[in-house]
Amino acid sequence: MEIEKTNRINALFEFYSTLLTEKQMNYIELYYSDDYSLAEIAEEFDVSRQAVYDNIKRTEKLLESYEQKLHLYSNYIVRGQYCDDIRTKYPNDAALIELIDQIQAIDEE
Amino acid sequence: MEIEKTNRINALFEFYSTLLTEKQMNYIELYYSDDYSLAEIAEEFDVSRQAVYDNIKRTEKLLESYEQKLHLYSNYIVRGQYCDDIRTKYPNDAALIELIDQIQAIDEE
Repeated sequence: MEIEKTNRINALFEFYSTLLTEKQMNYIELYYSDDYSLAEIAEEFDVSRQAVYDNIKRTEKLLESYEQKLHLYSNYIVRGQYCDDIRTKYPNDAALIELIDQIQAIDEE
Repeated sequence: MEIEKTNRINALFEFYSTLLTEKQMNYIELYYSDDYSLAEIAEEFDVSRQAVYDNIKRTEKLLESYEQKLHLYSNYIVRGQYCDDIRTKYPNDAALIELIDQIQAIDEE
């Protein structure tokens, strides 16, 4: 599996998993995060390998379409860059760094 | 119409409108943002007043369900409070305020 694609799907999953069905969540998580093969997932859920493959492909498109509409992942990246700029500019201001950490942590709740 | 509810639906609409269908968008925007009556919307789209009402009620629930799953609006509020804290603490640091403004603007693109 391509590492770049794996990383991207895992990142999108972090932001949009709550919008997926339980089945979509399970398949994507097992395949991309837990590195199961399609055959292993198919066996686990007693469905065909093709059914798992089709479901995962559809979910990938759905995750990309949420990102296109809401940009949560790209906003997170941009926000992180601004936060890092501030950390670099004020390395000794612990109170400011604390506030910046809290701003970044909001996304991770 | 209750002003509090109007404000909340308008706020949720800002964050989640891209996830709605065109019809859902149109009805909600005319009703909550442009202050059309149900009867006026019904006439405009040549449907019954009840159909408009049902669609709007369903869309309100959908917007609340997106907020429950993604918390974009409540995150925006919390982030704004941290940003205001920083503005209050460093009123004379124009470069820092500029970075904070940019962090807040990310959500508004």
